Amino acid sequence: MAVYTEVTDEDLVAFLAPYDLGPVLSLKGIAEGVENSNFLLHTGAGAFILTLYEKRVDEADLPFFLGLMDHLAARGLRCPQPVKTRAGKALGTLAGRPAAIVTFLEGLSLRRPARGHCEALGAALADFHRLGEGFALTRRNSLSLADWPALFEPARARADSVSAGLTAFVDAELRFLQAHWPQGLPHGIIHADLFPDNVLFLNDEVSGLIDFYFACADAYAYDLVICLNAWCFEPDGSYNMTKGRGLIESYRAHRPLSAAEIDALPILARGAALRFALTRLVDWLNVPPGALVRPKDPAEYVAKLRFHQLVESPRDLGASV
Amino acid sequence: MAVYTEVTDEDLVAFLAPYDLGPVLSLKGIAEGVENSNFLLHTGAGAFILTLYEKRVDEADLPFFLGLMDHLAARGLRCPQPVKTRAGKALGTLAGRPAAIVTFLEGLSLRRPARGHCEALGAALADFHRLGEGFALTRRNSLSLADWPALFEPARARADSVSAGLTAFVDAELRFLQAHWPQGLPHGIIHADLFPDNVLFLNDEVSGLIDFYFACADAYAYDLVICLNAWCFEPDGSYNMTKGRGLIESYRAHRPLSAAEIDALPILARGAALRFALTRLVDWLNVPPGALVRPKDPAEYVAKLRFHQLVESPRDLGASV
Repeated sequence: MAVYTEVTDEDLVAFLAPYDLGPVLSLKGIAEGVENSNFLLHTGAGAFILTLYEKRVDEADLPFFLGLMDHLAARGLRCPQPVKTRAGKALGTLAGRPAAIVTFLEGLSLRRPARGHCEALGAALADFHRLGEGFALTRRNSLSLADWPALFEPARARADSVSAGLTAFVDAELRFLQAHWPQGLPHGIIHADLFPDNVLFLNDEVSGLIDFYFACADAYAYDLVICLNAWCFEPDGSYNMTKGRGLIESYRAHRPLSAAEIDALPILARGAALRFALTRLVDWLNVPPGALVRPKDPAEYVAKLRFHQLVESPRDLGASV
Repeated sequence: MAVYTEVTDEDLVAFLAPYDLGPVLSLKGIAEGVENSNFLLHTGAGAFILTLYEKRVDEADLPFFLGLMDHLAARGLRCPQPVKTRAGKALGTLAGRPAAIVTFLEGLSLRRPARGHCEALGAALADFHRLGEGFALTRRNSLSLADWPALFEPARARADSVSAGLTAFVDAELRFLQAHWPQGLPHGIIHADLFPDNVLFLNDEVSGLIDFYFACADAYAYDLVICLNAWCFEPDGSYNMTKGRGLIESYRAHRPLSAAEIDALPILARGAALRFALTRLVDWLNVPPGALVRPKDPAEYVAKLRFHQLVESPRDLGASV
């Protein structure tokens, strides 16, 4: 749940003056996005999302994020499209913060995606990758292999208090990944956080991909295994091969995977599991006492990593080789 | 900001099946109402508010609250109207909690209401009182004069830590109010919490009164001074006589006040100030460490009470006698 910056009616009306959105009808702070303050805005022109960027987002990255949405939406991807002022600006200032308006997408995120949803996701992810080609800006993945040791460092002293032996486990995994991480895979702009929360469905079809605030340049196949980890494990921790196959094969039908990409899936999946285990661990250890936000348990991703350590072939994930 | 109960897509679809609202399009948890979980729901039939009643609301009161909205909306008041299932039920169960759907009202709540807004509020409050007549159910005001001593008791030991001398101040005020509280004033169903947050405006006209979850039976004039306290003081604590006159006289133009009601305004205003000072004090002393919710400062209402202690006549509040 986001902590909201309060927006007064006067500030809102002034902010909207340079847009062609008609009269303001309502503004409701919504419980979406943990990095920013988000509002559902109704105007004479329809429904929109108003986002105020809080300090966890680097202001220098905003032209990349907004430009990427604009690029993808213009090419037909179902994603929020930044709304511009009459002067053509997508980024303004509201309540002392950078702020932007994007189109609102109807749809519900799924709690328990079925195989068909994983297939629809695979196609949407491939579209994201293909349509992102040619986008002029880029952004380094600040949560890549090279960043994980520094991410773990402040959590190291207390990691074993979360799970016995976790420090040694992470250290060994980091060494393994550093020794075996694949290089030279096809890469471009990836979403990097396409969890079920960030995919909207209507009538079992993808109606929108949202929350682009981790997007960056990295290997396309790494984005695929982030999805695999987030969508294809059951609540009991077991890997659902049917969903995994559905996701991977549907992706391939829309963007072919090279042999090198297929071969790399197991180790990329280990890396993707470690990345989310580490960020969750850090959040877990840094929750303020009494906070209303309950951080996600890092154990879920440690368990997924342990699963992937036993994978011997991309076939074990459902990929046909 | 409310703590949200999570609603899954599956539970939502099942909950909506007995309604004639068309397909679900989206559901967003909104930062509105501190007692309940509220969601803005878009369906094929339009925009609605879905409320899950959390434990701070007594389930036995729900037929009163929903019935009151139904009664008032049917008589033309701009307020949320409960939506009923095909079987005629307004109250169901979702995620293990009592839940209801009401119509969504466009409009913005005002941060700095002007005199014209106070006049519009006066008319809307009078409409609320007049149109509420004939409603079959009733509900005791559980935050009335008789309840204030028990409300203060758990805060007594720490009240002086909030403001020096506060305990003696409250005790003396309670004694005064108990000795002088007016009896036999015209009464009926009052809103009892009509703060600017709960009044929506479009184009400087009231587009809706919301959040009926403190509504109860009490003196109409008591509701008027709750508004007076909430709307007619400036941020620096000064009383704005122009706004006060606008509110009171506009109310009277739509529902005449008896001489007894006019005479009672100053002491009712003291009581209304004490009631909110006490509930804010209790919340202030019971905020969990690290909580994201910042409780409202009781000092604001202590200051309003001190102002009212110096009032000698209803004229001092702007009422023409």
